[in-house]
Amino acid sequence: MSVLSEKARNYSRKHAERFRHELFELLRIPSVSGDPTYAGDVRRTAKWLAAHLHALGLENTSVMPTAGHPVVYGEWLGAGLDSPTVLVYGHYDVVPAAIEDGWDTPPFEPVEKDGKIYARGATDNKGQLFIHIKALEAYLEACGEAPVNVKMLLEGEEEISSPNLTPFIKEHLDLLKADVCVISDTSMRTIAEPAITHSLRGMTYIEIEVEGPKEDLHSGLWGGAAHNPALALVEILGKLYNPDNTIAVPGFYDDVVPLTEAEREMIAKTALSDEQYKQTTGVPATWGDARYTIRERISARPTLDINGMWSGWTGPGPKTIIPQKAGAKLSSRLVGNQDPDRIFTLLKKFIESIAPKTVKVNVSLLTTGMPALIPFDLPEMRAASRAYEKAWGYAPVFTRGGGSIPVVADIANLLKIPIVMMGYGLDSDGLHSPNEHYSIEMFQRGIETAITYLEELSHLQK
Amino acid sequence: MSVLSEKARNYSRKHAERFRHELFELLRIPSVSGDPTYAGDVRRTAKWLAAHLHALGLENTSVMPTAGHPVVYGEWLGAGLDSPTVLVYGHYDVVPAAIEDGWDTPPFEPVEKDGKIYARGATDNKGQLFIHIKALEAYLEACGEAPVNVKMLLEGEEEISSPNLTPFIKEHLDLLKADVCVISDTSMRTIAEPAITHSLRGMTYIEIEVEGPKEDLHSGLWGGAAHNPALALVEILGKLYNPDNTIAVPGFYDDVVPLTEAEREMIAKTALSDEQYKQTTGVPATWGDARYTIRERISARPTLDINGMWSGWTGPGPKTIIPQKAGAKLSSRLVGNQDPDRIFTLLKKFIESIAPKTVKVNVSLLTTGMPALIPFDLPEMRAASRAYEKAWGYAPVFTRGGGSIPVVADIANLLKIPIVMMGYGLDSDGLHSPNEHYSIEMFQRGIETAITYLEELSHLQK
Repeated sequence: MSVLSEKARNYSRKHAERFRHELFELLRIPSVSGDPTYAGDVRRTAKWLAAHLHALGLENTSVMPTAGHPVVYGEWLGAGLDSPTVLVYGHYDVVPAAIEDGWDTPPFEPVEKDGKIYARGATDNKGQLFIHIKALEAYLEACGEAPVNVKMLLEGEEEISSPNLTPFIKEHLDLLKADVCVISDTSMRTIAEPAITHSLRGMTYIEIEVEGPKEDLHSGLWGGAAHNPALALVEILGKLYNPDNTIAVPGFYDDVVPLTEAEREMIAKTALSDEQYKQTTGVPATWGDARYTIRERISARPTLDINGMWSGWTGPGPKTIIPQKAGAKLSSRLVGNQDPDRIFTLLKKFIESIAPKTVKVNVSLLTTGMPALIPFDLPEMRAASRAYEKAWGYAPVFTRGGGSIPVVADIANLLKIPIVMMGYGLDSDGLHSPNEHYSIEMFQRGIETAITYLEELSHLQK
Repeated sequence: MSVLSEKARNYSRKHAERFRHELFELLRIPSVSGDPTYAGDVRRTAKWLAAHLHALGLENTSVMPTAGHPVVYGEWLGAGLDSPTVLVYGHYDVVPAAIEDGWDTPPFEPVEKDGKIYARGATDNKGQLFIHIKALEAYLEACGEAPVNVKMLLEGEEEISSPNLTPFIKEHLDLLKADVCVISDTSMRTIAEPAITHSLRGMTYIEIEVEGPKEDLHSGLWGGAAHNPALALVEILGKLYNPDNTIAVPGFYDDVVPLTEAEREMIAKTALSDEQYKQTTGVPATWGDARYTIRERISARPTLDINGMWSGWTGPGPKTIIPQKAGAKLSSRLVGNQDPDRIFTLLKKFIESIAPKTVKVNVSLLTTGMPALIPFDLPEMRAASRAYEKAWGYAPVFTRGGGSIPVVADIANLLKIPIVMMGYGLDSDGLHSPNEHYSIEMFQRGIETAITYLEELSHLQK
């Protein structure tokens, strides 16, 4: 190992406590991108990050406007034109969280407990993006320089499927020009099993609204001759699935690339047993398409999940109404080569074809994201593998991620560079759930691996 | 007509505006019985009513405790032991209402517009119970006496199915002793069609909760191998109905007394066309069991309606979770001779038998109410018919009400007296809905009919 990275790693250990306290500051701002109430907080987070990057000595740091929440940019190009440039992508927005959802402590008041940091965004993605900021700080403070050029692209709309990032990238192709993009927004099964993600699922997210009477009706006076909108919704949703738990929408699976035996063998390296799945999630039994293993179902096969559903009276006690309307949010996780827009068209067409005439049904698109599949024999991938190996003592596995980072496909296609997904999360971090947390040990290992990765990249041909 | 009732009617016309302003005071108190937040308001309403009855000269006026919300009692027994005693039952509690449900004006700020009073409880039941209070006031103020003895029994838990009224009646059989009970909590199709209700539907109200994972799961990381609780609920609810819109729960219809041809002919007198149903409710098309007419479906046949349904994320924008749980409130309107407790047992047993093993399902009972059927050839019924005839110029029809007044069966059975349901509501009043309203003309006619009815009762053999 070089003196440079050794110095940076030592610096990161020495300042570990301060790094965490800075992360706490970041976690305290409720940057919920999906709820307009928090727009000011999202903006405040962007400003905090830009100021932080500026203070570390990055140049061109700024909060850059989009049609939605802003992008934070900053760069350190001191390695010179002959050195590679790495683009770090992260997102500073979070999904909603309220203590009444089941949090033990307020979601935006980070606490340390049993070696973990509890807060909304701790792992997804504030903790993980902060790793790259602190890795760069370690080089700049300990050595006065970094081994490669670094550009930071931090967005505030990932949790609402990045509606404005693709236009932003298109407008700033020169600014974002780089040789490789690194993203830390994925996870490993346990801290003993480092993983590089080379595939992500895409997404089509829709909302269905069913309207019946012009207002809530008294179920005694009118019940028996009105099609209850909640029942109509139930009937529609029920028809979206086959008895074998596959999706009944015609054409849904048409573009799915079948898994080869070799791929299934690789996936089997991270096999997840029924028991493990049950223990981690708490479900009484597993479910799904029995032709595929649990790991395949949750990473290499498409899904259709009800994310939310509502109708009528949901408060305490009884209220005897026929609800005026009922609705549901559904999202489909897609795999190569499913096209999110085509899937929306198929869903909408099918739902409209089965909608009863006794109610009005509206299907609308909330967001889409392309699935992504990146070859894992690229030099930038092998460099990442070596970086993990130095921190962990053994090589990581290449895995398929079940989640979606909608812009991965766009960054790869627009900037024409490989994406290396070096996840420093754990499957059990509870992201998007109450009591989301982040391992302090992982935070430190992540910083050290990121430090090593920059050095490994400096050895690659520019 | 006697001088007594003529004087009372004149008094009621002269004081009509004040009567309405007093009603407004009553409507302003949000006596929502189903939500513990409003317990203080429910109590305040009871006190207001007791004070009001006391001021009118009723005796023994009091707010009487129960295990839940209190009962208001008051009596005027000045007609003497040889005169009949009429027990007036009404309820001063209301169902929830919030302006964001679609109200044009705040639900607890009554306003007069186009001859109607808009407020939660305007027709159900504050307006209608106030009719009897004002009818008695008219006699007492204009004549110094009433033609019969009157007892007022006003409860605060009708909208939560009167869990404590039956024990209350059992404890106060002597206090409540009467010859007939009159209840104004039903409605007519239009103001030109006065009706006496001789049948009411009963009710079994249940809640189903489906639990899957121990907390909300990230649908990307875990989706594909967990049975989504919202989907499991959808599957369960879907199986409760047959394709012909009848209820699929085994044994559900076993105890339904078949309608005779004579009964169907009587029901046909208040026929409701598809067009009328669609226009009043706003549904795009009618629905239900095609073997029965619309009027039969909504009054003489049992139902099973979803009153509320919830799961996961229902706020703005997308949130990609597999919800931890899903739930629904369902109520079944019952007809003679269905037993509400037996129906609960059947529902619970069936739902448990179809519940998938991939989730935990809990079925609980919220409330029950017995159906009621009263013969319509009793002298007290004929007296009511004559009272309407005097106010309207023609006789009312006898109808079956689709709604439930859970205590009707209990009052009849415990006090061993006939119940006369002289409804002064309109089907279009929007009870339990946003913009509930009450016709000012109906309010006045109701008072005058109630005045006449007391006189008609005085002619009956004690």
